[in-house]
Amino acid sequence: MFARYTLIFLFLTLPFTLSAEPLPSWKESASRTAIVEFVELVTTEGTPDFVPPEERIAVFDNDGTLWAEKPAYTQLLYAVDRVKDLAPSHPEWKDEQPFKGILENDLDAALAGGEEALMKMIMATHAGMTTGEFQAEAAEWFETARHPETGRAFTEMVYQPMLEVMAYLRANGFKTFIVSGGGVELMRVFAEDVYGVPPEQVVGSSIKTEFQMRDGEPVLVKLPELNFIDDKAGKPVAINLHIGRRPIAAFGNSDGDLQMLQWTTAGEGPRLGVIVHHTDAEREWAYDRKSHVGKLDQALDEAPERGWVVVDMKSDWEVIYPKGGQ
Amino acid sequence: MFARYTLIFLFLTLPFTLSAEPLPSWKESASRTAIVEFVELVTTEGTPDFVPPEERIAVFDNDGTLWAEKPAYTQLLYAVDRVKDLAPSHPEWKDEQPFKGILENDLDAALAGGEEALMKMIMATHAGMTTGEFQAEAAEWFETARHPETGRAFTEMVYQPMLEVMAYLRANGFKTFIVSGGGVELMRVFAEDVYGVPPEQVVGSSIKTEFQMRDGEPVLVKLPELNFIDDKAGKPVAINLHIGRRPIAAFGNSDGDLQMLQWTTAGEGPRLGVIVHHTDAEREWAYDRKSHVGKLDQALDEAPERGWVVVDMKSDWEVIYPKGGQ
Repeated sequence: MFARYTLIFLFLTLPFTLSAEPLPSWKESASRTAIVEFVELVTTEGTPDFVPPEERIAVFDNDGTLWAEKPAYTQLLYAVDRVKDLAPSHPEWKDEQPFKGILENDLDAALAGGEEALMKMIMATHAGMTTGEFQAEAAEWFETARHPETGRAFTEMVYQPMLEVMAYLRANGFKTFIVSGGGVELMRVFAEDVYGVPPEQVVGSSIKTEFQMRDGEPVLVKLPELNFIDDKAGKPVAINLHIGRRPIAAFGNSDGDLQMLQWTTAGEGPRLGVIVHHTDAEREWAYDRKSHVGKLDQALDEAPERGWVVVDMKSDWEVIYPKGGQ
Repeated sequence: MFARYTLIFLFLTLPFTLSAEPLPSWKESASRTAIVEFVELVTTEGTPDFVPPEERIAVFDNDGTLWAEKPAYTQLLYAVDRVKDLAPSHPEWKDEQPFKGILENDLDAALAGGEEALMKMIMATHAGMTTGEFQAEAAEWFETARHPETGRAFTEMVYQPMLEVMAYLRANGFKTFIVSGGGVELMRVFAEDVYGVPPEQVVGSSIKTEFQMRDGEPVLVKLPELNFIDDKAGKPVAINLHIGRRPIAAFGNSDGDLQMLQWTTAGEGPRLGVIVHHTDAEREWAYDRKSHVGKLDQALDEAPERGWVVVDMKSDWEVIYPKGGQ
């Protein structure tokens, strides 16, 4: 069995070791060099820095790291549409935030409650649904929903250079995980097709579910109760619970990823910490320390001393989104 | 220790992928045939029953399904040793169950509190430890602890026929997960070496952990607070949260696995549900409906109507434990 896996592994890695240039959408830059050198370091057998494949765990934040998060988290825009759909049967929402703000198209008012307001929306709009019903509905939403500023499908608002990083790591024997504040079930709807990350490698925030028998059929029903918020200090906790092994590479873009970056890069041996810095007001959005969404402040301060790579989206990336989008 | 297990694992699995006959420790039996036919069914391309590799998820209970659970769960025996180690600094335990029972060598009294008593022990003995400290200590325990009746190491109390099932499934493109009521961090100490299941594919019960900075070093500290009990109706919930995809095969041995078996086998397409029935009083233990540990009652009743395979350990298995044990 090991012999066979080795063969599969060889087969997977060959194309990349043969082709001259990984990460084609990255310009020659210090950040590109740092990523490639790290991968070569940990995959070169017979050196003290060699890391066996089973320990090559890489974790990626999603919002702002793998896809756009402006003007608001996709999860929020999804919840907004759900609230509007369900509003007719909830007359009380007219006077209650965050629902009031949504129904009056005042997203700032709705957002004022922060993460808690978002969770309140999610809980109110998902409770009572089975996991199967939710998946079907979310998949349908992704088919038709469009980004309010670019008009693209949300699954086309992903960052082409980051897709290449994930593929490059996997081709070098890494297992790629998403570790995001986003709802785990919403991300799983598209993560396999869009990122090549299977459901069991997606870690996120969640509400509780309950096992029930309905007409003799077992179902999992969503409850209006928070299970876990996978953000900030919650990220290393979730990594430990779900992955059970400290990653050797972590990619984030905000202070929500600070502890994940700290936890990953404090381990022994070679470690890679990467921050995607939103510097491109023309092709994407430029924001950091003062931003409401995706605030990057403390992590940016800590980057130099901790040796984290800070990617300058404007100067390091040839393209932002995949070609072929709308 | 780990190198030794890896060798055992190689020794155990290599012959099967090379030999024509999978599951060599299984006698010709209806249960062996059912497992082999299921695997052939879902892996034969071009048929309506073909299942693509990414959906070939198999889940295994641990206690009583992959290794022995008599006279008591290994987790409990571990906690007992911990309580005894820590007792000198906890004089109050002399008068408080389950600690009192343990210190008086009256395990029945300690066990009377059921799962809650076990969790109480775990929380009391683990709180304040970092995850790294816990792993080191648990690994050391497995080195020296011996089963109270057989004198074997606990990692040699695994079922050889089930090791073969896991290896056979993996050789056929399945991803094998453990979904157990046992503590997730304790199982991860040995699951990769003994079962070939990496940490990220081990799902179990857990206590909460907290991210902290200690002298500038990030650590995860165990808290005296329950996070999740991965048993009974909790198993499908945990499968949904951690795996995010309904398994196509489930292996259990007790009513604690009932809902996992229901959830797995109620899915569309070919499904395999297997119950390991403890029928061998001579080579192992014989128990089911009346047992305190590993009670098998309702799941045994539902097996015929739901088409679950019931493995008769006494008549279906050539051997119970791997050769080479003490």
